[in-house]
Amino acid sequence: MRFPTIAPTADVTLAAALDDAINNKTKPLGSLGTIETLAKRLGLIQHSVAVTIDRPAILVFAGDHGIVAEGVSAYPQDVTWQMVENFLAGGAAINVFARQNGCALHVVDAGVNHDFGQRVGLIDRKMAYGTRNFATQPAMSSTRCLAALGQGAAIVADLPGNVVGFGEMGIGNTTSAAALMHKLAGIPVADCVGAGTGLSAEGILRKQQVIEAAVAHHAGVDDPLAVLATFGGFEIAMMAGAMLKAAELRKVLLIDGFIVTSALLVAARISPAILDYCVFAHCSDEAGHRRMLEQLGAAPLLQLGLRLGEGTGAALALPLLHAAANFLAQMATFASASVSEKSGDA
Amino acid sequence: MRFPTIAPTADVTLAAALDDAINNKTKPLGSLGTIETLAKRLGLIQHSVAVTIDRPAILVFAGDHGIVAEGVSAYPQDVTWQMVENFLAGGAAINVFARQNGCALHVVDAGVNHDFGQRVGLIDRKMAYGTRNFATQPAMSSTRCLAALGQGAAIVADLPGNVVGFGEMGIGNTTSAAALMHKLAGIPVADCVGAGTGLSAEGILRKQQVIEAAVAHHAGVDDPLAVLATFGGFEIAMMAGAMLKAAELRKVLLIDGFIVTSALLVAARISPAILDYCVFAHCSDEAGHRRMLEQLGAAPLLQLGLRLGEGTGAALALPLLHAAANFLAQMATFASASVSEKSGDA
Repeated sequence: MRFPTIAPTADVTLAAALDDAINNKTKPLGSLGTIETLAKRLGLIQHSVAVTIDRPAILVFAGDHGIVAEGVSAYPQDVTWQMVENFLAGGAAINVFARQNGCALHVVDAGVNHDFGQRVGLIDRKMAYGTRNFATQPAMSSTRCLAALGQGAAIVADLPGNVVGFGEMGIGNTTSAAALMHKLAGIPVADCVGAGTGLSAEGILRKQQVIEAAVAHHAGVDDPLAVLATFGGFEIAMMAGAMLKAAELRKVLLIDGFIVTSALLVAARISPAILDYCVFAHCSDEAGHRRMLEQLGAAPLLQLGLRLGEGTGAALALPLLHAAANFLAQMATFASASVSEKSGDA
Repeated sequence: MRFPTIAPTADVTLAAALDDAINNKTKPLGSLGTIETLAKRLGLIQHSVAVTIDRPAILVFAGDHGIVAEGVSAYPQDVTWQMVENFLAGGAAINVFARQNGCALHVVDAGVNHDFGQRVGLIDRKMAYGTRNFATQPAMSSTRCLAALGQGAAIVADLPGNVVGFGEMGIGNTTSAAALMHKLAGIPVADCVGAGTGLSAEGILRKQQVIEAAVAHHAGVDDPLAVLATFGGFEIAMMAGAMLKAAELRKVLLIDGFIVTSALLVAARISPAILDYCVFAHCSDEAGHRRMLEQLGAAPLLQLGLRLGEGTGAALALPLLHAAANFLAQMATFASASVSEKSGDA
């Protein structure tokens, strides 16, 4: 598989032009805080001072996980397909927030343990009926892993618009994500493991032990793609491929929570410049997400104590992207509005 | 003046019904974090499990301040009226964000040092051409102060809709707000003073000294209305009156930044139950706002490093209020979507 070529967004001339545009708006210097830094980032990604938010879309990747056999989730595996049905019926949180904020929503079956048949609104890219149990075997073969990355890229290549939000559904996938975080970010397993959908303290400890045992079992697996195949999920691999393609196409990547960020960890190891294209929607309440974000040097837009996944944080953050674009496009300058500039301290 | 009677929103039966409605949605318990607590708060305010966001409006109160003669601002006083013109022309940040988020915007001349004449979109409630310099005299008479409170109440009484956001404009008004914070919250002046529109460290120190001298000059003024008249501004007094009326009418009060919160400090001293009706839009970068919010037990929705005022934080937070209402109204329950409930730790 050829991985996309991702160009860093750094551009001294454009950065200066964006700073000028931002600083001439009728407001004290820097007083719109994160909205200003976001506007600049969007400008660098879009290679323009005329930032637009065009047909934003959220992709929700769903997959099942063999590791659930180890008792790592508070919910039964059936909830994965049941929630996909909920997405298709429009009743989940991500439906509500995407609809509200004018965001297209596409659901991808990357490897759910259920036959949906042909369904309107479902993109069928099923790699298998869930991964294998990585406690004892690699979650997927390297061939399947590369195929999943490729499918993700193909989905994004067909997508209109210039903003892609990422979301996921998969009972057991915080366990995969925590293992990826440990292997790729070098953070102790205990600091990568959280409650997921709602484990007790005892359940969290069990989850930690399952991951530690699996990591020991697969000792020596260190190449990012091998780590992804060994500990990942089909929805995570497909997301990583989708992210790489989106950055190659200079789209804005709107990154949701813990599992989505674990996919980004993989993608960033393949192409570090992908981080230039990311906007981090929120800091999740899932233990470990804050640490991941810190290691990526990410400044999340929202801190709302979310830990639902589905791309809900991405959907909720979208109005702030519109605000950054509208701020640049619509706000008056000191000159255009005849407002006096700073006189300095009197 | 008769102050409005504000009823606390506490209601055990309704609270339990809201908890039930929230917890039966298809998501792990508590996983929508602040969106859930916000939905509950809106339900308690509206006295219903069927929460709505109806014709939200932001009121921007503008006024000038005699204290600017002491050299407490980085911008000349003319910027107050120039920015009001900018609001009327639609070119300020608050115009951009209110427009984007479907929020009506009303600009109130509470006491700007400028003759605007009859203008479309401007509510003329001018109390005077700015306050007196509170370094040496009370900013306004107690009669004027009560009149400003009454005007604010009257404006809200005429407003349709069930959400009122508050914003302000007034060169010098962080100095008034810091003095109010010191007097009403009992916090040392040094911890109440910040850069405002962009003072240097030296300028901030001068501002602190001006406030400390004024506080000493007006020693013994402690009643909240006397404190407001002595150190306040017409836009702050009018806002406090508007807030009290809005809470009496069981509207949601969407509280913006440092100056708006200083008006709320006054209102809360008059009627503590007003806090039940407040949603705190954001934590400002203006030093002191975080302390104010802590003392009010407030959990702000956004942390975006804003320090612009105008109600910009309120406008940016509005989509989260819609999200909370839509979450309650539109999301499926475990039963309606046939999704399995938590099975406990395996």
